Order: sequence, then C-alpha cells, then structure tokens
Amino acid sequence: MLLDLSKWYRTLAPRTTVLVSTIDKKGNSNAAPFSFVMPVSTNPPVIAMAMVSTRHTLANIRETGDFVVNIPGEKILAQLWACGKPLPKGVSEIKESGLTEERAKKVSSPRIKEAIAWYECKLRAELEGGDHLIILGDIVLAESDEQKDEKPLLHIGGADFCLPGKNLKTE
Amino acid sequence: MLLDLSKWYRTLAPRTTVLVSTIDKKGNSNAAPFSFVMPVSTNPPVIAMAMVSTRHTLANIRETGDFVVNIPGEKILAQLWACGKPLPKGVSEIKESGLTEERAKKVSSPRIKEAIAWYECKLRAELEGGDHLIILGDIVLAESDEQKDEKPLLHIGGADFCLPGKNLKTE
Repeated sequence: MLLDLSKWYRTLAPRTTVLVSTIDKKGNSNAAPFSFVMPVSTNPPVIAMAMVSTRHTLANIRETGDFVVNIPGEKILAQLWACGKPLPKGVSEIKESGLTEERAKKVSSPRIKEAIAWYECKLRAELEGGDHLIILGDIVLAESDEQKDEKPLLHIGGADFCLPGKNLKTE
Repeated sequence: MLLDLSKWYRTLAPRTTVLVSTIDKKGNSNAAPFSFVMPVSTNPPVIAMAMVSTRHTLANIRETGDFVVNIPGEKILAQLWACGKPLPKGVSEIKESGLTEERAKKVSSPRIKEAIAWYECKLRAELEGGDHLIILGDIVLAESDEQKDEKPLLHIGGADFCLPGKNLKTE
C-alpha cells in the first residue's frame, strides 16, 4: 500500500538510538534522544545526526562546538524517554531523569555515566537536510564499557523501542 | 576501553539496512546494500545515505538522478549479501543474486520485487562527509507490502546481521 509521505520514516525502523549530551556556556547540561543518526566516515571518524533547529541540543552545540553521543543500553530506557520530554532551557534532563553526568575526556560536554559507549565529538559542519539540520561531528574519542552486558536500544517510533534479536550469519 | 577510532562505527549498531537499486543510461541495473542510512526530513520527505565515491550506485545516481531504497526482509538476506559482492559495472547484482527487478512508479531506477517496502527517490544533494559522500534523496513515493510478514534486517558488521527482538514500551 502507498504510505503517507509525511510518515515515511516509520518504515525505516527500528533505528539505532543515541542520547546526545551537551552543555551551554553557563554550564547548564542537556541531553536528548535521537534516532536519525548514522556513521558517515571511518577515516576521519565522522558521525551524522539530523535534528530540528529549535533543539536545545543544537543551541548548545553551536555555543561550545562539541557534544557527546552516548549509546544507551536497555537498563536506561525509562531515563532516555524522560530525556525526550521538553524542559525549559537550563534545566538538565540528565539530572531530572536520574542519570549521572561525568566529565568527558576531550570535550566540554558531559558524558552520561550509565551509557554503554561514548563518542566525544567536535562540530564539523551543519548541513541543510529539508526540515532538519544535519549535524556532522568529528569523533575525537570513542570508548565503551565492556563490563556492562547490555544490549543497545533501537527506536521503532513514538514510545515504542526494541532490542536487537536473533543473529543471522551470511557466511 | 578506548576504541580504535577507525572502527568506531561498529559500536553504532545494529543499523537499519537497505538495498539501493539504480540503473545506468544504457539500461544496466545495479543493487547494493547500505547501512549508513537515516531519515533527515519528514516534510519534505528526505532520506540520507553515506557511500564511498567509487560505488557504481553513485555513478548511476549521477547519470539518472534517481534511485530506489528497498527495505529488505529476513527472507532475502542471502541475496542482499550477494549484492554486496563487487561485480563489473554493467553486470546486474539484482539478476546475479536471484532477485527480481520491477518497474518503479515514479523513477527510472528499478524496484526489487522481494523487498517489503520501497522509497522511490530523486537525488536532492551530494554533501561532503569525510571519506564518504552523503547522498540526500527526495522521496517521491513510499510503499509497503503488508502481505509480507517479514522483519527487516539489521546490520551488525561484516557478515553479521540480526533481526529486531523484544519490544519495549516506555508508556
């Protein structure tokens, strides 16, 4: 059946989900979930995310020039969802949702301790992408916590998420 | 542990996987799998994919200005994988892999019949993204086959894929 074009992306799912943490010049931290995200380059290492221009995340990235992409594991789904609720600028979704921020190693934006992997990024470019902006980040440090035995979250749409399931081998 | 930056994208996984079909000016069709893909816009509907500049897919998109993003279901994993093997330009991965091409409704590139959904796209822009190009496509038609009860494939890395698993509800 033909799909409503305004809802087309619901069939490009489930999608990799990330929690992006930032900080503004006054030191107020912020975190928001995104699932319009993909790798775009291996050398140099570059990640792309699409976001609407009204996001506090975007305002903070423009202020500091950096951000952290946190990979959320299954244990923090409720907190990830809470981070998606609109809060006034300056109120930290990280603290409000019960997550813990910790200092990043190479950027000013904080990391979220409960994540299972982190990419510390510096803003590389803002590109036009229709009704979203495409934010490119140069990854200056990538780290994972091998002790956390958690699967990454995938976004189906709205309030629906899933975990990776059955493995398939091609060779 | 710190990750090798050249392998960073392996932890941004599993990723939504698509099979992109194109055609050259002489009428030779082509298909290749991609997992560097994301939605970037809802209105207008725009999809983004990152690809290296040597891809036959890219050469064909430049020749015709269009492409089809096919969403592969679990039944065509072997064929999807076969489409990723390098073949000389002009030799169709679609036919070689045992898939069936059919005429698209709004673009010159063919659709792959065995897919579970299709986005017919016109090239919107080519953007710089490090060692890949970011191809933006305006989606001119989106369709899914509700009769095919198949889960979409997700790419873990290399020859490893998986299916979506356990559903999680946040609300």
